[in-house]
Amino acid sequence: MANNGVKEPLLWVSLDATQKTEQQLNKRSLLRFRSAPHAEIVPTETNGNESIPHSASIFQNLHPSFKRVAIYLAVYLGVGALIFYLVRNQIKGQKTDGILDALYFTIVTMTTVGYGDLVPNSHLTKLLACAFVFSGMALIGLIVSKAADYLVEKQEILLVKAMRMHQKVGSTEILREVETNKTRYKLFIVFFLLFILIIAGTIFLVTVEKLDVIDAFYCVCSTITTLGYGDQSFSTQAGRIFAVFWILTGTITLAQLFLYIAELNTEIRQKELVKWVLTRKVTNSDLEAADLDVDGTVRAAEFVIYKLKEMGKISQEDISLVMQEFEQLDVDDSGTLSTSDITLAQSS
Amino acid sequence: MANNGVKEPLLWVSLDATQKTEQQLNKRSLLRFRSAPHAEIVPTETNGNESIPHSASIFQNLHPSFKRVAIYLAVYLGVGALIFYLVRNQIKGQKTDGILDALYFTIVTMTTVGYGDLVPNSHLTKLLACAFVFSGMALIGLIVSKAADYLVEKQEILLVKAMRMHQKVGSTEILREVETNKTRYKLFIVFFLLFILIIAGTIFLVTVEKLDVIDAFYCVCSTITTLGYGDQSFSTQAGRIFAVFWILTGTITLAQLFLYIAELNTEIRQKELVKWVLTRKVTNSDLEAADLDVDGTVRAAEFVIYKLKEMGKISQEDISLVMQEFEQLDVDDSGTLSTSDITLAQSS
Repeated sequence: MANNGVKEPLLWVSLDATQKTEQQLNKRSLLRFRSAPHAEIVPTETNGNESIPHSASIFQNLHPSFKRVAIYLAVYLGVGALIFYLVRNQIKGQKTDGILDALYFTIVTMTTVGYGDLVPNSHLTKLLACAFVFSGMALIGLIVSKAADYLVEKQEILLVKAMRMHQKVGSTEILREVETNKTRYKLFIVFFLLFILIIAGTIFLVTVEKLDVIDAFYCVCSTITTLGYGDQSFSTQAGRIFAVFWILTGTITLAQLFLYIAELNTEIRQKELVKWVLTRKVTNSDLEAADLDVDGTVRAAEFVIYKLKEMGKISQEDISLVMQEFEQLDVDDSGTLSTSDITLAQSS
Repeated sequence: MANNGVKEPLLWVSLDATQKTEQQLNKRSLLRFRSAPHAEIVPTETNGNESIPHSASIFQNLHPSFKRVAIYLAVYLGVGALIFYLVRNQIKGQKTDGILDALYFTIVTMTTVGYGDLVPNSHLTKLLACAFVFSGMALIGLIVSKAADYLVEKQEILLVKAMRMHQKVGSTEILREVETNKTRYKLFIVFFLLFILIIAGTIFLVTVEKLDVIDAFYCVCSTITTLGYGDQSFSTQAGRIFAVFWILTGTITLAQLFLYIAELNTEIRQKELVKWVLTRKVTNSDLEAADLDVDGTVRAAEFVIYKLKEMGKISQEDISLVMQEFEQLDVDDSGTLSTSDITLAQSS
């Protein structure tokens, strides 16, 4: 409730143009800036154009496709399973089926669960395991930071829609609500998914691997946290088929949960800071400091920069960089940019 | 070399006032904004003042002390060692000394290494291990994201200083260089530290635990990645004393390395985007869109906001929030803030 003052504007800026109220129409300068660009708009100009390496590589990275990460994962698991299948005689422990064990060993290694029910038994396989665990960690990090996010975002609107079905709210409103509480919803979905995975893992271990309930739960916790003592693990063929899918999703989901908790924490602090900056009294020395072009008046844009800097959203370096470009473009040194300024400045 | 255009300004904005060159003095508007506040300056007003909950809690979190995290860690390890010492008869495996084993088991669990050389042997200890691994993961996450950063920052200047000793550059210049390449230096230090830890661990395992070199290296990799198959672990009393310190630093250092690689990656992409935004041609439609207060001219501050938005550093929501405050403060609706505006607006 205390955050209402901060959240409200976030809500209405996403309103469609047809939904503007009179009050908002009066605030011309607020609405005016909607025509300004946003980083996400730029790629349409250059997307898929390999001859412009700057923008193309940037936006591929800013908006990583789930597909790319899925390909990396498939290649990693394929190569891992093949290699460990070829050296299967140099791995000792509880074995079931050759290729399944190799895939299971790859996943237990890449997720750093490391039960120890299958262990390398030669110098070659030990060094291979070292290589696979380092590259696996990097890949899991990539999945946790990128692809899972993409999947969760796809699901969250569906989930919220289902939850709100009886309230008869439109999809525009749902979208807006999801937008303002993004991290909260992502956290909720991941928590829900983790809960399902824990239940499913426990039931499976009780029914298929014949563990008692506490042992099954202990094995589940030991696995999703990547602890993997190895006193309880998947020893049957059916168990390992299940484990191949379950270990990967379980460990990634828990890592994702921790990431979202950290994200939510940062967001809450950031919101508190924004609120503090916006509610504190403006003094005369603030006005003086905010007067960027030293013309004795503080215009809207100057005030925005001053406050955003105070919130820590932009730094002096950011401002200086753009100011340098401004001064290069402002050929007539008038303190304002005109069409003739930019024509002159950019023709040379 | 290609980044020079971007890096240069970052360098000179951190120059001391006494070092200003004539060229820079001419750029009055660039220097003018140095009096504007920065989020980091604010805490001096409110620090330690518990009666202002907003700012106090915010800045304690923004600048977390290493001390606080160290206390958490000490409490966690103390409680863990005590509890697992009390239930030591319900833990089976290779034992050495009661309290040392309990501490070793706590660390092997919290870091999710989970060798399995000591495993819980009762329902109580299994559930305790579950509780300790979840809370341990959260704590390790906190350490990786906060405290290690603090320690590395303390060390980096010393290291750079040592490396540059023969070049006779002043400490001001070193500070500036460290600032502009912060993540690179942090990455370098963590990489260096990890290298030392790997060497130290391998030598220790060869000399004290009598492993051959490949096995020792394999055990080191298996440990710092938290894989912990458990076929090789620390079985002697001396080994476990070493392990208590080495496992904790090793796993945290590797996690930190991955975090810095991700950070550096993000920074490089961000710099490319900044460069692209700053070097692309400014068009007339840009000028029109940048004119925040719709008065037909684009002033420096408006240009800065437009470009920072294009770089993705600020969003429409950020701008709208501050614009709302501006319009509340601009009582006479003149488009500029004056002393009388803020006096009138804030007295009501």
